[in-house]
Amino acid sequence: MSLDNVLARIDADLPAATERLLDLLRIPSISTDPAYKKECEAAADWLVKDLNSIGVPAEKRVTPGHPMVVGHINGDGPHVLFYGHYDVQPVDPLDLWDAAPFEPALEETAGGMVIRGRGSSDDKGQLMTFVEACRAWKAEYGTLPCKITFFFEGEEESGSPSLVPFMQENAAELKSDIALICDTGLFQSKTPAIITTLRGLLGEEITIHAADKDLHSGMFGGVAQNPIRVLSKIIAGLHDETGRVTVKDFYDGVPDLTPEVAAQWDALNFDHAAFLGDVNLSAPAGEQDHTPLEMIWARPTCEVNGIIGGYTGKGFKTVLPAQASAKLSFRLVGTQDPLKIRENFRAYVQSMLPEDCTVDFTSHGASGGSSMSTAHPAFEQARGALSEEWPDAAAFAGCGGSIPIAGHFKEILGTEAMLIGFAKDDDQIHSPNEKYDLESFHKGIRSWARILDAMTRK
Amino acid sequence: MSLDNVLARIDADLPAATERLLDLLRIPSISTDPAYKKECEAAADWLVKDLNSIGVPAEKRVTPGHPMVVGHINGDGPHVLFYGHYDVQPVDPLDLWDAAPFEPALEETAGGMVIRGRGSSDDKGQLMTFVEACRAWKAEYGTLPCKITFFFEGEEESGSPSLVPFMQENAAELKSDIALICDTGLFQSKTPAIITTLRGLLGEEITIHAADKDLHSGMFGGVAQNPIRVLSKIIAGLHDETGRVTVKDFYDGVPDLTPEVAAQWDALNFDHAAFLGDVNLSAPAGEQDHTPLEMIWARPTCEVNGIIGGYTGKGFKTVLPAQASAKLSFRLVGTQDPLKIRENFRAYVQSMLPEDCTVDFTSHGASGGSSMSTAHPAFEQARGALSEEWPDAAAFAGCGGSIPIAGHFKEILGTEAMLIGFAKDDDQIHSPNEKYDLESFHKGIRSWARILDAMTRK
Repeated sequence: MSLDNVLARIDADLPAATERLLDLLRIPSISTDPAYKKECEAAADWLVKDLNSIGVPAEKRVTPGHPMVVGHINGDGPHVLFYGHYDVQPVDPLDLWDAAPFEPALEETAGGMVIRGRGSSDDKGQLMTFVEACRAWKAEYGTLPCKITFFFEGEEESGSPSLVPFMQENAAELKSDIALICDTGLFQSKTPAIITTLRGLLGEEITIHAADKDLHSGMFGGVAQNPIRVLSKIIAGLHDETGRVTVKDFYDGVPDLTPEVAAQWDALNFDHAAFLGDVNLSAPAGEQDHTPLEMIWARPTCEVNGIIGGYTGKGFKTVLPAQASAKLSFRLVGTQDPLKIRENFRAYVQSMLPEDCTVDFTSHGASGGSSMSTAHPAFEQARGALSEEWPDAAAFAGCGGSIPIAGHFKEILGTEAMLIGFAKDDDQIHSPNEKYDLESFHKGIRSWARILDAMTRK
Repeated sequence: MSLDNVLARIDADLPAATERLLDLLRIPSISTDPAYKKECEAAADWLVKDLNSIGVPAEKRVTPGHPMVVGHINGDGPHVLFYGHYDVQPVDPLDLWDAAPFEPALEETAGGMVIRGRGSSDDKGQLMTFVEACRAWKAEYGTLPCKITFFFEGEEESGSPSLVPFMQENAAELKSDIALICDTGLFQSKTPAIITTLRGLLGEEITIHAADKDLHSGMFGGVAQNPIRVLSKIIAGLHDETGRVTVKDFYDGVPDLTPEVAAQWDALNFDHAAFLGDVNLSAPAGEQDHTPLEMIWARPTCEVNGIIGGYTGKGFKTVLPAQASAKLSFRLVGTQDPLKIRENFRAYVQSMLPEDCTVDFTSHGASGGSSMSTAHPAFEQARGALSEEWPDAAAFAGCGGSIPIAGHFKEILGTEAMLIGFAKDDDQIHSPNEKYDLESFHKGIRSWARILDAMTRK
């Protein structure tokens, strides 16, 4: 059988594929730091060259930030777009790395062989699983299985400022039948997962002002407003006793789980004790009338991501500060309206201000939740293909995080996105000692070969 | 009349006295920074030499930190100890100074002539008002008016770590009939004031811990505890709707104002609108059944002086932090027991911790409020003397701040302390562009001459 030949070639080519990935990992393409602009260019050049080597005409495309890499190859069957990103997170604190982050290497660990280095899991290693599947396919058949658009960006770790304008300007070129995204993980590091719901994200920063300068808490304490106290009261009032968010109309548009999805998730046997135990927690802290998996995948949240005010150095200073700030984020689901929630949140904050206090608001983005329609035949084809590759049957899963690109494909291009990835929970993405299991890389490549086969089989 | 001769000599000697102060101000005796150790020694040496020049045998006395300066001179009448400190605050941010902080100068301003420079008001200028009064007295009479102990420290701006041990080891030597302290100000920059109550200070730092590492708020938001939210709830619960502190038994030992003190304070006509207006506030924010002056001088407080947790840099990061901390301080009055309050505060914090959260406590000192007994005849003598020097009659006033030295004289030496100072609210102590009004310096010297005269008149 021909797929078997492709899989056998993938197995045989794994050492060479790993060397190619190590080569890409050596390029410190940190997108958020302007000092690494040239290195981002170099990573884009590397990818152009690599796509060319499998017969895909590709080029760097200029943006106001780091370049996109876009390549098209014609073929029979459906038109598939594959998205990944070649930029990586900064590496500090550098002293917590056991080896230099951009001198990647294969390492034997208790959990098996891993590819260690910044970007190995997020996202260079995952991106290359698809490219390597294509390479094996091409080597076996001389062509790729269908019409494919490769679309790589270099700003994902710095907020993707150029992505939406680029997609809008090149909408006709980027339209496809389905978009494949490889930037997620295995469910509980084990079960292959196709992500079908993502939470949206509303970011807000508030700064409470009182006196026009820092005051001495002896001279003014008792008679002057303290913005830290005002801010604390605002934050404390955002949840009721049961853990529900108190912002007006917050739950408008939050759907109940369909019995079908509830049954699917139930079948996943989520081990929340292990999930929380890994970070030294034990009790699910959200709305108590929902399961832990629902708390993460299906319920909206309001969290404080940062707070600062007054003296925060060593020792003590008896200051009544002039201001205090907090960064808050709301994870949104279903059809919750981020702009309406922002408006109601801000009205709540205003309503909590005592005399002599004012507030400044800063917006840090607003995107709604998204859910993928599994009606597209690719979803069932991919689920079947993944189930053949991995010991566990593949699952339709949710994701508590926010991956705006999925929404952009739908909104800008009208294309459904299918998110499949092979990262594990302990890959330490965004942290020191990032790694990608060699098994994830190997079975990831094989998975894409199977998925392409399932999608194009006649 | 002989006091008149002393006052006339003070007037005539003012230019020379000012030059001497400028000389002392040129020494950058920043006590908190080890780089200025030699300069602290130099300031102590300067004072020894200056005391010697008026016939007072004085010497530097070694401590584990910066030296004390102690000098005794015998005489008739009561034994008076005078306390001041020769060390100064750091000067950063240096770029906010209009002139070099240690190149002091006389400057003409809209409010009159001022002596500009670090330490001019806090406390070198105030310290020298007493020394200059003694110099004029000595010049006129050939002796000082009574037995005087000069006691200067060099660590007041860095927490006075050597002070209590030094007082304990030298208690017999430092005992006197009354201790005079010149480190306070005129009431509302105008009315000469003898401070009779000071608030105590209890400093506490709490750190709330949840997960053992920072978490991603997408992956864990909704199911994991957020220590910033826990901390905010703790802070929000520390006051009830009326502004009263909720810590158990907090108000035990808080005295009602005596009708006599209430009448005295009422007569001060405190202009709280101007006081708050200076810092762009308008509404007294404390317990609404007390006057603004009571809120500052007679009522205890609980304030948050600093808070930090999570991501506080530019932009946004969707982190669920592992910990969040706050520094809190309680100003205490009457016989409130700081150790009992610490215990009840900590019990309250513990009671607010949800499952999976723990707390670390750090203590930053605990001292009770103090009140001076105005029964000592020196209080009425000083009040009369000050009232003769200044346009307004002198007042017995409170102070919202905490000056532990006053309590130390009473507890360690059994000596009542009388706090009289001539600083103004706009002296910018601890801030850039510190100044001391030439009027404060001049009338301060004259005030001490009058007070010494009143205390020793036969």
